[in-house]
This record gives sequence, structure tokens and C-alpha cells, in this order.
Amino acid sequence: MQDLRDLLGRITDLNHAAALLEWDQETYMPEGAAESRARQVATLRSLAHELLTSKEASSKIQTAQPESDIDKDLIRVVARDIEKATRVPSSLIAELAQASGMSKGFWQKARSENRFDVFAPHLDKIVDLTIQHAEALGYEETAYDALLDQYEEGMTTAEVTSVFEDVKKGLVPIVQTIADAPPLSDAVVRGDFPLKNQWDFGLDVVKQMGYDLNHGRQDKSAHPFSTAFSITDVRITTRSDASFFNPGFFGTLHEAGHAMYEQGIDLKLEGSPLADGTSLGMHESQSRMWENLVGRSRPFWDHYFAEAKALFPAALGQADVDSFYRSINTVASSPIRVEADEVTYNLHIMLRFELEQDMIAGKLSVADLPDEWNHRMETWLGIRPENDAEGVLQDIHWSLGAIGYFPTYALGNLMSVQLFNAAISDIPQISEGLANGQFAPLLSWLRENVHQWGRRKTANQIMMDATGTGLSADPWMDYIRTKFGDLYSF
Amino acid sequence: MQDLRDLLGRITDLNHAAALLEWDQETYMPEGAAESRARQVATLRSLAHELLTSKEASSKIQTAQPESDIDKDLIRVVARDIEKATRVPSSLIAELAQASGMSKGFWQKARSENRFDVFAPHLDKIVDLTIQHAEALGYEETAYDALLDQYEEGMTTAEVTSVFEDVKKGLVPIVQTIADAPPLSDAVVRGDFPLKNQWDFGLDVVKQMGYDLNHGRQDKSAHPFSTAFSITDVRITTRSDASFFNPGFFGTLHEAGHAMYEQGIDLKLEGSPLADGTSLGMHESQSRMWENLVGRSRPFWDHYFAEAKALFPAALGQADVDSFYRSINTVASSPIRVEADEVTYNLHIMLRFELEQDMIAGKLSVADLPDEWNHRMETWLGIRPENDAEGVLQDIHWSLGAIGYFPTYALGNLMSVQLFNAAISDIPQISEGLANGQFAPLLSWLRENVHQWGRRKTANQIMMDATGTGLSADPWMDYIRTKFGDLYSF
Repeated sequence: MQDLRDLLGRITDLNHAAALLEWDQETYMPEGAAESRARQVATLRSLAHELLTSKEASSKIQTAQPESDIDKDLIRVVARDIEKATRVPSSLIAELAQASGMSKGFWQKARSENRFDVFAPHLDKIVDLTIQHAEALGYEETAYDALLDQYEEGMTTAEVTSVFEDVKKGLVPIVQTIADAPPLSDAVVRGDFPLKNQWDFGLDVVKQMGYDLNHGRQDKSAHPFSTAFSITDVRITTRSDASFFNPGFFGTLHEAGHAMYEQGIDLKLEGSPLADGTSLGMHESQSRMWENLVGRSRPFWDHYFAEAKALFPAALGQADVDSFYRSINTVASSPIRVEADEVTYNLHIMLRFELEQDMIAGKLSVADLPDEWNHRMETWLGIRPENDAEGVLQDIHWSLGAIGYFPTYALGNLMSVQLFNAAISDIPQISEGLANGQFAPLLSWLRENVHQWGRRKTANQIMMDATGTGLSADPWMDYIRTKFGDLYSF
Repeated sequence: MQDLRDLLGRITDLNHAAALLEWDQETYMPEGAAESRARQVATLRSLAHELLTSKEASSKIQTAQPESDIDKDLIRVVARDIEKATRVPSSLIAELAQASGMSKGFWQKARSENRFDVFAPHLDKIVDLTIQHAEALGYEETAYDALLDQYEEGMTTAEVTSVFEDVKKGLVPIVQTIADAPPLSDAVVRGDFPLKNQWDFGLDVVKQMGYDLNHGRQDKSAHPFSTAFSITDVRITTRSDASFFNPGFFGTLHEAGHAMYEQGIDLKLEGSPLADGTSLGMHESQSRMWENLVGRSRPFWDHYFAEAKALFPAALGQADVDSFYRSINTVASSPIRVEADEVTYNLHIMLRFELEQDMIAGKLSVADLPDEWNHRMETWLGIRPENDAEGVLQDIHWSLGAIGYFPTYALGNLMSVQLFNAAISDIPQISEGLANGQFAPLLSWLRENVHQWGRRKTANQIMMDATGTGLSADPWMDYIRTKFGDLYSF
């Protein structure tokens, strides 16, 4: 068992070292080092992959005698990792890596020049290879199951479809109702927000939430992200806009939500492959909970608005908490996913989920993709992108070969409300705490029910144990109806 | 051959990744991550060592067919690395690592409490293991040869002793003469030097010298250092003192000197074990050249003093270039090596060189070390440390098991003058350039004669090819006599 732990520790160290190289690339690395850095990351990831798929690892997994429940979980989870990693021929892995390596540049060019035809042949190739990938991975019902399973283990296309249909049914009329209602203004959060004060305020709030700076830190990067090099070193990055409050502040809360998840993993799992978030959906549930259910709530701002007003007198001097609260919760259909509000966000995801399935099933050609994209945007969100750059070309994911990834964003939204409701129902002091800047009760509940487990439980097990039910759309729909019904009087 | 290159590329990538982890540890890593980071660095270094000493590497080295002169050099250098790495049993490597891991903490405690007895048993152990290490490495004349060879390949104890004796003979009377002369004042460089302006000034000057920020960057750390993750990513760190100009500014020049060496290595060597400085002495020759021969010279300040005066009006407003030049070149025996001036520095090194040899030869016991240290300090430098903390306990090196390392500092000083003289003799425009802030002629000469070669030439080969002679004390002694004879009128 100790031999197995040592080998897995080495694999984990290699992957974490690669993550630090990637973090450095986005934060401090001098520009001229891009080429050597790409090679170094590839070397570390390849070595980790080779060790995981080695005969040595397989034989150790088969012969190891577990000495604890953690050991049993480790063997089960890693056996599955190995099994999945060995199903795909390395030639296909290499082809996928090469295709997505090539494709990213063409996607960037296509987006900046608003020319889908520049990206189309590369997306064609990626879809083709992704289908082969799904076939190699194997599945029970549909090829898309295999893709989804990479990011959200154990979740099937049928389950996601069923839940998403419920969301769509409830949501499309709400979006229509809000579109017809008098719009709320976000003028309050658009003004003069000095970057230094945004930085300090965001960091101060996430520290109060429980983000531990003795085991983490915040840096700047072009795209905000969270990354872990161990349970004791989980970092976030932030990007702020000096004339718009939301991206910097809520981005910081979002990334800190991801980071607190990994900081909360049981230290007994340190250095092992179990010390990671259990799925992308579960990860997103944590970031969205702190960003939206906490950070965009009325009680939160009843407590923090005075501080914000003192820090940003130019923008907020004349505002009150009512107008501020409305300003951070305006709903408006936008063509761009990453700018979407809480209400419309999931529709952006569902659109991608459906188009991905159709492409993988061979029902939708890459050539027809832009029209289909625009058509569904119009049907569901009531807007038509002006061009492909703000339509089908807006996201990087497909260019990287990440098909099956998008649905986890919406799953995270749904789970966040289910978990939040369960927490409040278990511990009534949580609500009171949120109105007083006291986050310890909520964080303790999350630590206990979600964080500590790392990959020992699947997302579904966590949901069952913590909430008593599996994934469901209803709690999120209720949350949206209540919060936005109040804001938009429906 | 390509197989061999690929394998060596992996080893190099692992070592460079470890270096980035270490850089992060000194610059940005949150405190609480120390333990996991130590493990990660050890994992990467072990993997690199295992790959280098693997049967695969040996067989590839033996069968590879070189396709170029670089390939030939690569095979020769790496064959020697492998041979050395395999001579030492891994049990001894592990014992050394463990002893120095343990010892560092006791050294810190001993130094802060001024209690040599706390460190003594650990140093005893390290000396004992180091002797075993030298025996395992093998040598022709004396065990110390094997230790020296780790840091300064091909250099023997006898050669170093011969050169150091020349230095000592010339230097001790000069130190005595200066001690008897009216002292120069360094009051000008002790005053109000705002940190921000120190940072900007240092960075501006090293950029002008040729340090390339598209392939490098400067950060803060407790102890300044330079480190490379590839030829295209060579970084420096700096630490400044708001009331003393010298450490920050000359430290920056020193580290940039190291960094420009590695930035100047032929890009054809990128990603291979040849892409490194050829020896510690040669590395130090580059840092000391830019720090002292350039940065502490009169022509340099004839050009830069006006800028310094404008940046530091509080401290330099009333000063002139004469008083400033004297102020950065005062000579005074100090017990502390890292605070020593150009004249006395080498004596600090020679003292360590002699004591190390005596310990390794079994002629000096650890128990007798402090007395012997203090006795020689008094004989050579005319001062006696007030306590062991500022005497025998001042340096970290021995606690890390680095015995045989110190002499390379003095070798670097000697080489720096030999190379500088050769450069000026080859290209007269270099002198003129230095008086006008034009460093390109000097840097080009160094690129051509030193930097580009990486490890393809040994330090001795570089000296022979660039200067026509091997290591010699005379040029450095002449430099010291001329510069400080002028300053101290002897």
C-alpha cells in the first residue's frame, strides 16, 4: 500500500508542478518564454500520464492491501482513472493534443476577424477526433455520455437532458416576462471604481468568507482562475475593470469559492489523487454559491454596502442599498455567456449542450452550426448575435477539444441552490450569519458535507448524503422565481 | 541521437520545473505551503536523477550517433554527468540529503542563539558524510579535489592553492596598508534611498546593460538570487535597504550579471543539459564583472551619477561624483563575508578554503573550528569576530552540505578581471562604451567568448580561448593595486 501511495504521490506532485508552471504562465512569466514553457508543461503531464498507465501502477493497484477507508477509496478511484486512461490509444491522445494545439490559434484568428470559415475545418477535425475519443472511452447509451463523464463522473446525457428540460420549460417564459417588464438600471455599478480599492475590498471579503491566505494568494491575470498545487496552496487570480464593479468583485468571490473547496479537503488526502474537486459541476456549485447565493444576495449587501460606499465614494456616494442591489442583479439577454446574469446564464449553457450532442451524433454539421446557434439564441433568449464573433465563436472550449464540458456550468448552478438550501435547513444560524458577515457556519457545513471528501465521494453521492436527493431543477427554479419575481414584480 | 536528446530534454525540463518551484518558494508561495513544496521539489529532482542514472540513459549515450559538434559535446558532458552520478551509492545521497535537511534548522538556531555547540554535532556528521562522498566520487591527489570538482569541474586543489597563495601574499599587506591609511567615508551612500526609486533605477540600468526583460523579470526575495527555467526565462530577485544604497543596487547588477550569462547561451542548446553555466566560478566571474568592474568603476558613475542624484535628492543632493565613487568603494575589514568590499572579500574565501581542506583531511576537528576561524581572521584581516554568530556560523553553506563551494567565489573574482582585460584588449571601444552607458560592445564580447558556449567548454577552455592563459592571480592583484592604490594613495 505504501508503494502505491508513493507512486501516486509522485504522479500528483508532477501534475501540481505542471499547474504551477501554468499559473506562472498566466501571471508572471516573461512573454518570450512561451515556447519553452509549453514544452515543460507537456513533459510533466506526459510523465504523469506514463506513470499512471505504467504496468507498475496497474500491478500495485491490483496487489495493494488497503489499510483504511481512505486507502479503499484511493484504490477504487485510481483504478478507474487508470482504466479510463488506458482505454484511449496514445496515438489518438497525441492526435487530439495536436489538433487542439493547432486549432486554438485559428479560433483566435477566426474570432478576431469574425470569420467562422477560418475555424470551421479545425472544428470539423476536433469533432471527428472527439467522436473517436468517445468510442474509445466507451459508453452505454450515447457517445456524448463518454464525453460528459470526463468532467462529471457518473452523470449521463439522459439525466442532464431531463433536468435541463425542466429548467428550460420554467425559464424561457420568465426570460420573456422580464424582457417585457420595465428594465432595471445597472448605472450604480458603472462608474469610478479605483482598482486598488477593488483589490483590497475583494480580498478583504473573501478572507472574511474563509479563504485562507496562509495557504493561498491572489494575483492578477487576463482571465481569472483558481488553481491548487496542494491542499495547503490554493491560489486565485482576479481581473478588475476600473469603470464597472461587477467583474472584479464577483469574479473574486467566484474564484475564492473554487479555492475554498480545495482548501477544505481533508489533509489526510494531501499529495494523493483524491485531493481534488470531485467533478466540475460540484466545483462550480461552490464558486456560484459564494458569488451569487451569498455575494449577490440582499442580506450580504445590507451588511457590506456601507463599506463599499466608503471605498467607492465617487460611484456609490449617492446610491442606497436598494439601488445597488438592483444594479448587481439586472437581467438582460446578452449574446455573450460570460456576461450573462443569473437568470439567462443557464440558457446559454443548454444551447451549447444541445448543439454539442447534435454534432457528436452527426445530426448537425459544423457548416450549419452558426445558423443553428443564432436560431436557438433567438428562440430562447430573444436576441440574435450580430456576428459569429459574438455568437458561435465566443468561447475557447471547443478549440481546446473540450466537448462535454459546458453542461457542468449549469449543473453547478443547480447544485449550488440544492446544497445551499440543505445547509440552511440543517443550520438556521447560517442565514443570520450571512446578514452579519459571519460565514463560518456556512463554510463549516460545506467543509463537512462537501469539501473534506475530495474525490472520495462522487458528486452524486455528495448530493444524496447532503441533500437527501439527486440533482433537481426545482430548487434553482424556485430560487430564480423568488429572487427575480421580487426584483421584476412577477 | 534524437532519442537521447528527447530523454535529456525531459531531465532538463524536470530540473527547470523544480527551479521554478524553488523560485516561487522564495517569492510568492504562501507560508503554509512549505511542507508540500519541499516534497514536490524532491520528487522532481529525484525523477530527474533516476532518469539520468537509468539503464536507458546509459545505453542511449553509448549508442547515440552524433550528428553535429553540439551532439558530440552533449554526449561527452552527459556521459561524465552520468558517470559521476552513478559513482555515489543512492544510500549515501539519501543520508547526505537527510543530514543537511536536519542540519539547516540547527544551524539557524545556533546562529540566532550564538551557540556553536547546537550546530557542531550536525556539522560533524556532514563532514563525515562529505568525506565518504568524496571517496565515492574519487580523486587523484586529495579528497578535496572531488568536492571542488562538483562546482568547478576540472579544477584541482593544488591549482587553487597555488593561485590563492599568490593572492594572499599580495593582499595581506595591502589590507594592512589600507587599515593604516585615513579611512574613506561611506556616508554618501547611507541616507534616504526610497525603495521604489532604487527598484526602478536598478532595473533601468540592468536593462541598459543588456538584461532582457522579454526573457526575464525581477522580483523581491529575502536573499537575492538568479535562476533560469530556460534560456528564454532567466529571472533575478533583489532586496533593497531604504537607508543604504549599496546592497540593492549592486545586488541587482550582480544577479543581472549571472542572468545575462544564461540569457546569452546559444539557443541551439535550449532544453538540453548543455544550457547552463559551465562552472560556479565562471558564473561568478560574470556577476562580479558587472557588479564591480563595471558598476563600481569611475567611468560608470561619470555617466550615471547625475541620474542617481536626480532619483535620490535627499541622500545625494549635496554629493559629487568623487565623494560618491569613494563611498561605494570604501575598504574596511568586517567579520561578515557578504558585507565585505572588493579588497577583503577574497580573504574571507581563502580562510574558508583552508579550513574546509583541514576538516576534510582530518587535521581540524569541528570542535576546534571556531578558535581556528577567529585566529585566522585576526592574522589576515586584523579583526576578531565578537562571537560565533558573526564568525564561523555566518554562512549557510556547510549546513547544506556544500563543502568545496566557497573557493568558486574567489575564482570568479580572479576570472572576472582576466576576462575583462581580454575583452578591452580585443575591443578598445568597450572602455569608451562604459563611460557612456554603452554596454553592447562588452556584452557582445562576453556572448561570443563566454556565454554562448554553455557547458560545451569547461571554464579552463573558456579562459584559454578567450584570454590565452589559464587562471592567474596577477591581473586581479594589479586591478586591486591600481584602483585602491588610487583611492587610498599607496
